[in-house]
Amino acid sequence: MNRCLLTPGPTPIPPRVALKGALPVLHHRTSEFGAVYKNVAQSLKYVFQTKNEVYMIAASGTGSMEAAVVNLLSPDDEIIVASCGNFGDRWIKIAQMYGVKVISVSVKLGKVIKPIEVEKVLKKNPKIKAVYTTFTETSTGVVNDIKTIGEIVSKTGAVLVVDSISGLVGQEFRMDDWKVDVVVSGSQKGFMLAPGLSFIAFSDKAWELVKVSKIPKFYFDIKKYKKSYTTNETPFTPPVTLIVALEESLKIITEIGLENIWSKSRLLARATRAVMESLGLELFAEIPCDVVTSALVPIEIGGKIIKTLKEEFGVFIAGGQGDLKGKIIRFAHMGYIGKIDLLAGFACLEMVLFKLGVNIKRGKALAAAEEVFLKG
Amino acid sequence: MNRCLLTPGPTPIPPRVALKGALPVLHHRTSEFGAVYKNVAQSLKYVFQTKNEVYMIAASGTGSMEAAVVNLLSPDDEIIVASCGNFGDRWIKIAQMYGVKVISVSVKLGKVIKPIEVEKVLKKNPKIKAVYTTFTETSTGVVNDIKTIGEIVSKTGAVLVVDSISGLVGQEFRMDDWKVDVVVSGSQKGFMLAPGLSFIAFSDKAWELVKVSKIPKFYFDIKKYKKSYTTNETPFTPPVTLIVALEESLKIITEIGLENIWSKSRLLARATRAVMESLGLELFAEIPCDVVTSALVPIEIGGKIIKTLKEEFGVFIAGGQGDLKGKIIRFAHMGYIGKIDLLAGFACLEMVLFKLGVNIKRGKALAAAEEVFLKG
Repeated sequence: MNRCLLTPGPTPIPPRVALKGALPVLHHRTSEFGAVYKNVAQSLKYVFQTKNEVYMIAASGTGSMEAAVVNLLSPDDEIIVASCGNFGDRWIKIAQMYGVKVISVSVKLGKVIKPIEVEKVLKKNPKIKAVYTTFTETSTGVVNDIKTIGEIVSKTGAVLVVDSISGLVGQEFRMDDWKVDVVVSGSQKGFMLAPGLSFIAFSDKAWELVKVSKIPKFYFDIKKYKKSYTTNETPFTPPVTLIVALEESLKIITEIGLENIWSKSRLLARATRAVMESLGLELFAEIPCDVVTSALVPIEIGGKIIKTLKEEFGVFIAGGQGDLKGKIIRFAHMGYIGKIDLLAGFACLEMVLFKLGVNIKRGKALAAAEEVFLKG
Repeated sequence: MNRCLLTPGPTPIPPRVALKGALPVLHHRTSEFGAVYKNVAQSLKYVFQTKNEVYMIAASGTGSMEAAVVNLLSPDDEIIVASCGNFGDRWIKIAQMYGVKVISVSVKLGKVIKPIEVEKVLKKNPKIKAVYTTFTETSTGVVNDIKTIGEIVSKTGAVLVVDSISGLVGQEFRMDDWKVDVVVSGSQKGFMLAPGLSFIAFSDKAWELVKVSKIPKFYFDIKKYKKSYTTNETPFTPPVTLIVALEESLKIITEIGLENIWSKSRLLARATRAVMESLGLELFAEIPCDVVTSALVPIEIGGKIIKTLKEEFGVFIAGGQGDLKGKIIRFAHMGYIGKIDLLAGFACLEMVLFKLGVNIKRGKALAAAEEVFLKG
């Protein structure tokens, strides 16, 4: 282990998945690839917890976010964006680029969306076409109550669109039961795959908006993907090797079972939070998610922690983005990341904090993590 | 060799490239990935034969084609699309989707664009903002005279945009010398890589259009890519493993040298054409390109040839698309495809034609190929 990747995407790829992706490339218009596609399409429904079709787009997650805007809306449509961080704000930027009117329901960084605020704005604005929000906000580490927001939005004419790029697979998420109309995800987080493939699924209610959407689109035109889906194909050459690797990672996911993966993330998250607290680092997220843990660090050493972890130990964690730069550190515990990766990361964090002059008792963080792991 | 991939994309991936892509994934905001990016960016300039920056977009080739439309134009702008097949027609579809007025200069399938026709239309329509065309039209197998078209367009205020997805690397193409303003390419052809990564480069003249373009865009907004380029990054999570593999394939390409690769394709193309003629199959392309050979086949057996080659021998070649379905077969000789792959494919083609009752003399096609290869 000369490199320990604990960043919230890309996350480590299981060797058996990586090697599948290195097998001789298949042609995408063959029954051989069609069989892979069909298998993957079926497993994706399970992962999304939906009966809807899940489409694959060759793009990073932002590509599918754009698809969720340009396929549902028309210029001058009004939407709510419930944002609690960088990735929530991305919805605002994309929507405004296409001339959509955005009512922002935002909260301070580190806080979660209040479903009741979304409800208030929806009541005041009956013309709202859609509510865009984020499941686990990777930039701050919070998890939003999508189930309650789903209840609220489903009673209106609006659709609910959720960026579940970092949260899917790692934390309980149920598209259909929670009444989410559009879910967007990406390959490089819980899916344990390299970046370059994104996913999107639409409910029947969302398809009604697709029919009348007037924003122009070509590559992201979801009607093309829906049409190709019927013959186990994509409208444009798909990232074949990523999809073949995806078949393998979905096999792992279905063999373990989503509930077990959710439990595992919860355990890793609890251990990580215990470590931060034992080191005197205050947790940043009001309601922390199970896939990434964020903690406040003394501003003067924020950047140095990340840099030293990387350069001295080969441990890669993330810092804060934008206004949070230097103020927080983020440990991911999603996908293929497991106990031993985190334990190594925690020990290195202790050493780095000690070196940087923080008053800590060495071994205490590890003891806190062991305590959680031993109790299970 | 239980599978022989002779399709014009995806094409086979050299094992050393595929295995590089299977190495542990790097985080994209690190000096480690930055070094790969910088190296790749430099080699891409060589491959494009340009001093311009070449940007990488996580998408299939069509994504970069869309980028070449939405970044240069505004609704109601007038452009010429000089199309000689399916991929040329894609320019028309994308442009019209964004409200751009298209003057089509098209030719019959199998024929090449007449530069003089482009010149005539340009003279009659001084408002033309851009000429969009195709270098090697994969669907028919022709190569267009981009150099002459470049001379013509460069004397006007319009920019020249060329889809060089299948032709780049495999056949002589010089962005700067030929005065091409925007070049689009993709990973899965001459680059010997899996699909999922596309490329685009802009001349200074093209950047002037970018500045005033009014078509909305987010994921494909090239200004974002230009800005990130300065720090060896991409605006959105890049397909890290594909780019790491690309570094390896570009190493192969630069070691061999473009001129030598162009010669190799020319030799393979000559052998393939000799084979088709020896089998009594008329070449379809008026001016055949060096990366794919198309030949007319009896309509009643067109589909069967492809199917039998695949099912009995594991040899994958392409048929015709759209109106050409069943009428032509296409053998690719680009990227990692070499003499031995083609020889195996030719022998299987002989056997399949014989089985399907075509009057051929077995061994003749191979003798024709050997003749070309022995003379060199």
